[in-house]
Amino acid sequence: MASLFGGVEGGGTHSRVVLVSGDGRILAETEGPSTNHWLIGLEKCLERIEQMVSEAKSQAGADPSVPLHSLGLSLSGGDQKDSISKLTQELHQRFPHLSQSYYITTDAVGAMATATDHGGIVLISGTGSNCKLINPDGSETGCGGWGHMMGDEGSAYWIAHQAVKMVFDCMDNLEVPPHDVGYIKQAMFDYFQVSDRMGLLTHLYRTFEKSKFAGFCQKLAEGAQAGDPLCCHIFHKAGEVLARYVVAVLPKIDKSLFLGELGLPIVCVGSVWNSWEKMQAGFIQVLAQARREVPVQVFSRFSLLKLKRSSALGGARLGARNIGQALPLNYADNVDVFYTHIF
Amino acid sequence: MASLFGGVEGGGTHSRVVLVSGDGRILAETEGPSTNHWLIGLEKCLERIEQMVSEAKSQAGADPSVPLHSLGLSLSGGDQKDSISKLTQELHQRFPHLSQSYYITTDAVGAMATATDHGGIVLISGTGSNCKLINPDGSETGCGGWGHMMGDEGSAYWIAHQAVKMVFDCMDNLEVPPHDVGYIKQAMFDYFQVSDRMGLLTHLYRTFEKSKFAGFCQKLAEGAQAGDPLCCHIFHKAGEVLARYVVAVLPKIDKSLFLGELGLPIVCVGSVWNSWEKMQAGFIQVLAQARREVPVQVFSRFSLLKLKRSSALGGARLGARNIGQALPLNYADNVDVFYTHIF
Repeated sequence: MASLFGGVEGGGTHSRVVLVSGDGRILAETEGPSTNHWLIGLEKCLERIEQMVSEAKSQAGADPSVPLHSLGLSLSGGDQKDSISKLTQELHQRFPHLSQSYYITTDAVGAMATATDHGGIVLISGTGSNCKLINPDGSETGCGGWGHMMGDEGSAYWIAHQAVKMVFDCMDNLEVPPHDVGYIKQAMFDYFQVSDRMGLLTHLYRTFEKSKFAGFCQKLAEGAQAGDPLCCHIFHKAGEVLARYVVAVLPKIDKSLFLGELGLPIVCVGSVWNSWEKMQAGFIQVLAQARREVPVQVFSRFSLLKLKRSSALGGARLGARNIGQALPLNYADNVDVFYTHIF
Repeated sequence: MASLFGGVEGGGTHSRVVLVSGDGRILAETEGPSTNHWLIGLEKCLERIEQMVSEAKSQAGADPSVPLHSLGLSLSGGDQKDSISKLTQELHQRFPHLSQSYYITTDAVGAMATATDHGGIVLISGTGSNCKLINPDGSETGCGGWGHMMGDEGSAYWIAHQAVKMVFDCMDNLEVPPHDVGYIKQAMFDYFQVSDRMGLLTHLYRTFEKSKFAGFCQKLAEGAQAGDPLCCHIFHKAGEVLARYVVAVLPKIDKSLFLGELGLPIVCVGSVWNSWEKMQAGFIQVLAQARREVPVQVFSRFSLLKLKRSSALGGARLGARNIGQALPLNYADNVDVFYTHIF
């Protein structure tokens, strides 16, 4: 069996592993639940990584006792130095058979490494949300990514929270919602299988699981699809706040990133982007306004890109690069341009 | 030893127990940490109640093996029927020696029973926040009280959260704060003993304790006291949102509650009210606007009352009433009118 390089994409709800050969072919792919160590703790995170990678090895027909050359992990919540060095250390100590070397980076950096090596913006809206500008020189500027207690604007969690909060506030006579809450209220009781707001408190506190709560977003996406005005309103707001993340990093963008055929490339990661149509108006509105307020001459267009492959692939590339090995990836195969806007 | 009636005030950070004789004299008072079962779980809640009541018994020189006549618990988080009946049942089963009967109600109802038996509004802003209108006929209308994940507007937690969020958003270039964040940023790093925002994530997720996070509000109150404009701004906002709770229940208020000498009585519970001066302008502004928009003729004045005694006393009264015993309380001794506004 040829040399194997592994990659992990670790999200707040799902994870993926790929094994790649030295010439860039994908030999195995496996899936699993969240590997965000903030959400599930270090122990579970380690366990799940070990399990998915071992599964992938056996899928590829590789000897499970022979370590990979490298394992590159692209993890949501992979930002904090202390936690990352702890995680790396534990992987080395506990799983010497799993891989010879480990490299951990953020979900944003892994996504970018899957899409291009020229840089751009990664705008994540999955369970949580995050925005990262990566300039061609590799320098990074972030906005968001602080989790549901301190942000996650425009994410599935945030959208679900906005919806639930509107129902609570309407029933409390605290706020008048912009549209009828009927659909969302019923969908909320159905999704969480409760009969009143008190019943929901358990899901918010005692048995809180971010991915479960964020999963309610899917019902709201269906509501928006079916034309429920309040669902549409919330996705419009989500478009606005996601665009505000882009506006936040705008002053730091290297001019060259505006000049390609696509204009500013924005790699969109996460399932909330499946509702792009419902977010589009809000997103463009905020960017157009920012351009008027602080004219950036070269910012004349932008494109939204979607990964066709898991950012575990970018993780694998970065893990290999970290040990001096260049994995050849055909970037064009990895991305779809699903929207281009010209101002 | 004469018959003893007990009361518990259970907050998100502190708790208090009183023992009262049949003629209304307070014989013992003890303190302890949070007994909010949402925050600490049922087990710890039970344990702490047992411990504080036993301590109070020995303080009163009572035989610890002789049960109280009744124990009335006025608990934050004491709203949900299922949890309450579970809690009552466990108290009966585990601690038959503690009390012959148990009665559980909310912190709001306990506070009202301490202040008056004519009804009014209880507006809680401690660790969390809550508003409850209790009409003279005993009927209740609530607003808020859903905890930090879904509300707690104007509470210590909310004020702390607003402040931290403003620092995060400013550093992310996501929002321009209305005033310099310098004081709050430094106070935040000092209070949580971290050197950057990443360090704070542990306090928000892995080791999250609501009362610890809410405790940061004290530093912001000090900042407002010292004149820091951003701290003052946040307390002004807190005043606004607390007044919005009152506006939410305004349509349900029985006319008679406006007609007393004090106007609408609002019993203010929780340590955030210590910063009333900094909240006053925002609070009055919102109430004055609501009066203009939906004129309520009789709403010509309101008064803010502060309890001079723990609402454990009201809990004791309600617990006794539940077994047909009227504890004579001198309400005038229990409250202070600290502010009256005439529109």
